[in-house]
Amino acid sequence: MSGSITGKNIKVSTWGESHGKALGCVIDGFPAGMDLTEEDIQNFLDRRKPGQTDASTPRKEDDIVEILSGVFNGKTTGTPISLMVKNTSQKSADYKEIASYYRPGHADYGYDQKYGFRDYRGGGRSSGRETIGRVAAGALCIKLLEKMGIKVCAYTKSIGDVEIDYSKFDPATRLITPTAMPDEEADKRAMDLIRAAKEAKDSLGGVIECRITGVPAGIGEPVFDKLDALLSSAVMSIGAVKAVEIGDGVAVSRMKGSVNNDAFEAVAQRISKKTNHSGGILGGLSDGSEIIIRAHVKPTPSIASTQESINNQGANVEINVKGRHDPVVVPRAVVVVETMCALTVLDLMISNMSATADAITDFYKKR
Amino acid sequence: MSGSITGKNIKVSTWGESHGKALGCVIDGFPAGMDLTEEDIQNFLDRRKPGQTDASTPRKEDDIVEILSGVFNGKTTGTPISLMVKNTSQKSADYKEIASYYRPGHADYGYDQKYGFRDYRGGGRSSGRETIGRVAAGALCIKLLEKMGIKVCAYTKSIGDVEIDYSKFDPATRLITPTAMPDEEADKRAMDLIRAAKEAKDSLGGVIECRITGVPAGIGEPVFDKLDALLSSAVMSIGAVKAVEIGDGVAVSRMKGSVNNDAFEAVAQRISKKTNHSGGILGGLSDGSEIIIRAHVKPTPSIASTQESINNQGANVEINVKGRHDPVVVPRAVVVVETMCALTVLDLMISNMSATADAITDFYKKR
Amino acid sequence: MSGSITGKNIKVSTWGESHGKALGCVIDGFPAGMDLTEEDIQNFLDRRKPGQTDASTPRKEDDIVEILSGVFNGKTTGTPISLMVKNTSQKSADYKEIASYYRPGHADYGYDQKYGFRDYRGGGRSSGRETIGRVAAGALCIKLLEKMGIKVCAYTKSIGDVEIDYSKFDPATRLITPTAMPDEEADKRAMDLIRAAKEAKDSLGGVIECRITGVPAGIGEPVFDKLDALLSSAVMSIGAVKAVEIGDGVAVSRMKGSVNNDAFEAVAQRISKKTNHSGGILGGLSDGSEIIIRAHVKPTPSIASTQESINNQGANVEINVKGRHDPVVVPRAVVVVETMCALTVLDLMISNMSATADAITDFYKKR
Amino acid sequence: MSGSITGKNIKVSTWGESHGKALGCVIDGFPAGMDLTEEDIQNFLDRRKPGQTDASTPRKEDDIVEILSGVFNGKTTGTPISLMVKNTSQKSADYKEIASYYRPGHADYGYDQKYGFRDYRGGGRSSGRETIGRVAAGALCIKLLEKMGIKVCAYTKSIGDVEIDYSKFDPATRLITPTAMPDEEADKRAMDLIRAAKEAKDSLGGVIECRITGVPAGIGEPVFDKLDALLSSAVMSIGAVKAVEIGDGVAVSRMKGSVNNDAFEAVAQRISKKTNHSGGILGGLSDGSEIIIRAHVKPTPSIASTQESINNQGANVEINVKGRHDPVVVPRAVVVVETMCALTVLDLMISNMSATADAITDFYKKR
Repeated sequence: MSGSITGKNIKVSTWGESHGKALGCVIDGFPAGMDLTEEDIQNFLDRRKPGQTDASTPRKEDDIVEILSGVFNGKTTGTPISLMVKNTSQKSADYKEIASYYRPGHADYGYDQKYGFRDYRGGGRSSGRETIGRVAAGALCIKLLEKMGIKVCAYTKSIGDVEIDYSKFDPATRLITPTAMPDEEADKRAMDLIRAAKEAKDSLGGVIECRITGVPAGIGEPVFDKLDALLSSAVMSIGAVKAVEIGDGVAVSRMKGSVNNDAFEAVAQRISKKTNHSGGILGGLSDGSEIIIRAHVKPTPSIASTQESINNQGANVEINVKGRHDPVVVPRAVVVVETMCALTVLDLMISNMSATADAITDFYKKR
Repeated sequence: MSGSITGKNIKVSTWGESHGKALGCVIDGFPAGMDLTEEDIQNFLDRRKPGQTDASTPRKEDDIVEILSGVFNGKTTGTPISLMVKNTSQKSADYKEIASYYRPGHADYGYDQKYGFRDYRGGGRSSGRETIGRVAAGALCIKLLEKMGIKVCAYTKSIGDVEIDYSKFDPATRLITPTAMPDEEADKRAMDLIRAAKEAKDSLGGVIECRITGVPAGIGEPVFDKLDALLSSAVMSIGAVKAVEIGDGVAVSRMKGSVNNDAFEAVAQRISKKTNHSGGILGGLSDGSEIIIRAHVKPTPSIASTQESINNQGANVEINVKGRHDPVVVPRAVVVVETMCALTVLDLMISNMSATADAITDFYKKR
Repeated sequence: MSGSITGKNIKVSTWGESHGKALGCVIDGFPAGMDLTEEDIQNFLDRRKPGQTDASTPRKEDDIVEILSGVFNGKTTGTPISLMVKNTSQKSADYKEIASYYRPGHADYGYDQKYGFRDYRGGGRSSGRETIGRVAAGALCIKLLEKMGIKVCAYTKSIGDVEIDYSKFDPATRLITPTAMPDEEADKRAMDLIRAAKEAKDSLGGVIECRITGVPAGIGEPVFDKLDALLSSAVMSIGAVKAVEIGDGVAVSRMKGSVNNDAFEAVAQRISKKTNHSGGILGGLSDGSEIIIRAHVKPTPSIASTQESINNQGANVEINVKGRHDPVVVPRAVVVVETMCALTVLDLMISNMSATADAITDFYKKR
Repeated sequence: MSGSITGKNIKVSTWGESHGKALGCVIDGFPAGMDLTEEDIQNFLDRRKPGQTDASTPRKEDDIVEILSGVFNGKTTGTPISLMVKNTSQKSADYKEIASYYRPGHADYGYDQKYGFRDYRGGGRSSGRETIGRVAAGALCIKLLEKMGIKVCAYTKSIGDVEIDYSKFDPATRLITPTAMPDEEADKRAMDLIRAAKEAKDSLGGVIECRITGVPAGIGEPVFDKLDALLSSAVMSIGAVKAVEIGDGVAVSRMKGSVNNDAFEAVAQRISKKTNHSGGILGGLSDGSEIIIRAHVKPTPSIASTQESINNQGANVEINVKGRHDPVVVPRAVVVVETMCALTVLDLMISNMSATADAITDFYKKR
């Protein structure tokens, strides 16, 4: 059954394998009249591109996006926007060996059990390259959200045991550091850690945090399509994410109500909260405060050291995963978290437009 | 926009407010021919009923379920199953005061901003009573999963800083302890903690863990409808949950790949894993191991001590939330987590039936 | 798989069997703040109730609707509206015999093949009583559409070979004639035809037409969710409908383009069309003219004369369908067509609110 | 809101404009393991290609399909199949003039009202070229259905007043006649009619009929997702279709129950029906007989003669639609009807796999 389409109002259908001809997405339901160029999207794709630094794979992936439909005279038309990125540097030969065994920490075994076989070249559909479609689609959402004064900002919060220092936080910094950390000092220490892990033929995990500001109160739909539920799903669906937190997250289970409750206050006729343990979401709806979400990312499963596993005949084997792999996927996954959050928030903001009968009748009265 | 319906193959539509006439759900797409009685469902509803213990509100809620449709001669018919629980003991008078202000930690403010007003009686639709529909629907799914040898078992892992000891783990115990802990000793200590919090007019949070055994490898749909993504959404959509973990969860961000990777092994021709850091899910598909998910639950926001807030005129006020509240919602939420996980797994198992062309052609060849 | 839920923004989940405890629906996503009473809904249900006339079954069905959730202080709250109609006069004994054979023209055989058995009492879920949920849900949509100046008016166009005369058309008349014809003279002739068919132990079909005025141009979504596609599905999903026409319908296949094309014209700065062969829909979007749709309804399959069929052992048998049946279902189906069209149009009008980026940004700027 | 995605289990997302870079579709949820080549799809696309005959536009459209993802080693992988057809011969210059006015019978006005502007080149998204994505996707479904012994066969039944003679019916003939009629004599007369219409700067409509054999009884989901409802939507969503009939269709409204009812009979232990007025569908489920559906197609709105209309300033104008247009779209739409029906039937056959609890438990027991 279908599982590569997300969204309710704006539906994104992603496609493509690591070593196929191309990857891409179709964005159906994106509103008309927004100016859009390929550069708008390319800027985001470049953030997930493997760089020249030690933090990422030495594979070269140019990942140039092409707009195939849905844009006319520089503006979105309201009809499906098809985006494509051709695969150029993939060398399938690297991967032939892995056809015969199941890599620990990877989806190989599950895919074979589900489908009877798999596209084993570079992980096929389960490759991290799948996120190209997500980032391309989310780039459009971020652009539209910005027109409404909504900012979505994800960054690396930690790699291994190296954490950022919030007193040095600068969002612009995350766009230039190899780790995507918004703190240059922490970035340097994290890079040392990454080099050491690589040296040891090992890999690292980390935490990505995303902050969304400017979302009015009331966004999200009660019960199953709550803002936090859909954000969780969006972020957990990114490969390698094993935990999602909203606001104080796992810490709340040891807090008392008197501490965890955020007092509302009115300051100069504006309603706000004295604290933000809730991470901007109460009862599944935005509460007008900054929305905070964290994704915990596991260490890259592809490591150069020898591992125990089985082959597809069910025999125990020792394997060495070849190929060029990221020692840590966190830096490149930051923009994926950012774009997935943007997609979720924009989609729910559209849903919210019909929350009241007056909103609907007013909309059509004006015309 | 609609937000109270979940599921792809089996769709559950829940309805009802804390102090309305009734609450319930409609389960559309549930397969035909399963024997079903009201008792099957009642057993699960009784687990979320406030008890006579100090762990829960002294409110009396009988919560008797009625099957209104979809069952004939003791068997499901394949058509929508409508379940209803009448509200009986609700005293709306208790809640009139809260119409005028916004309770910290609650959805009141968001609802007013979204809809222009709200059903303020007992939280209306945002009340924990909303979960009656979820539990009733999930009870059916658990029954069907059991016929396939799949067990879904949720329990309280911790309340405040009291954790269970896995060496004393007994799943049957969770059904009789007031905290829903599967460890009687931890239960006693947790109960002491709860009494103390109550005494202090405060509240506690905790952690619910759910283990699902017997799920074959390959369940889940790639990319957006991954098993972990949908489980996260299902569990995060439960009020008061602020974080969701799969397997080692937040701990993975500090682990190394060589540790986090679970080695596959073949033992007596059966494929398994030497460890289960993944929590039974790799690349979004089940890997054949036990599935493990944890929900972090915040302390009950309704506390008896005085709190700062604002009223619906935007003026700062001090409030005392009246009414009868649970000092901790964790014990009653355990069955909600269990049933939501069951619903998610069953739905994806149905999706998986059409994963291959052979599966479809074989199905119709047999007939 | 689920099949009893319809709609994208407003989702209606219907449930209930002819002879179960009750029937009803849950309307999820209906906007908040619309005043709603049970009488608003009852007025529509009364139109599908069997009357005291010869046009319908002598069965007595009071069909009193109860609002169970989603309305507070006389207004919709934005959360699921649960509506229930209890079954009161059903006599299951009448139907026991039909358990053993398959009635020609009915769904009996298909249900048995699909589900392995069926609720045979009065057709179970495939009974015309299933439409109670549709009518109840659509009644709310008509109320909201009327606030926007949109009128939905269905009526009987013909029964057997008796057609209405448009020169005598009066929409109010359709609410009082036993045939739901908007022409009293045609009604009388049709009633004579019905009595004769009944006498002959036979049944009749007919045509229902629905006109929707006031819909602005541009409603409908390109390609698959076109206004005409969704209207067709909505109307064809009503039991006994075997054909759906938009505008000139089947006649267009013999027309020439020069005749079928409707010329646009501007009159006093308003854009309209000189003719309306299109039935108000061009390219799947409303064109600003009156929307016209017709449903062709087959004769009631339950007839009193002897018929050939098979029993559930596969043996050929002669049967006499007992019970109290409508000699023609057209008059009672009129309100079903009307409400299904309303549901479809309102849902698409909500979808259309996010057609442009400006519409979204303007919506949130105002707040 | 999204409107270019269809299907429940297999979801097809189509994209592309008449004069954009390319058109295509993404098929998500198509089962793994079916052998698939580009030729399999090309064969169907060639049937909708404008030919060298007088029945279609002299425009040259090569419409070569490329498989971009979802196929590995000649087999579908279970992951999204992305198909693309590049636009090659489109001359946008032809269409500049129509930017300023609204063509009668076209979607121009609705698009401008909905989106504020439109891609006016060749109709943009509302062009008949949009159906490339449908045909490509449906080609895969037909291939899989054939493996189950299900045949989907659409053909031209009539053009203008020229009808086929069923006594000369040969399905293979429809693949070679320029009108797609399965009767060579009727084809010749229809071609004469088409030439005459073209000469007169006018256009013609016609009727497409589709027959589906081999579908077991019980396919379709009760109430809203009935087989006939979804077929209607699928077919009505094709541009230019104004009416849809199932079985005897519009004729049933004048039939009596004693005639319209199809008697069941058992012949040599197989259950069948003596007649097939129902067109193979009863109560929304397949009844085991041949499924028959008809689409009534309007005459091409683009005609060479002068027409009255308005420009986008609201002024009345006389226009001459230039460009190369089909005098009748029926022959090229035949394969679109065929593939849309295939998509609908296959999707519902997958839905039906989980109709019973035994079907699900048996499926997993075998593994």
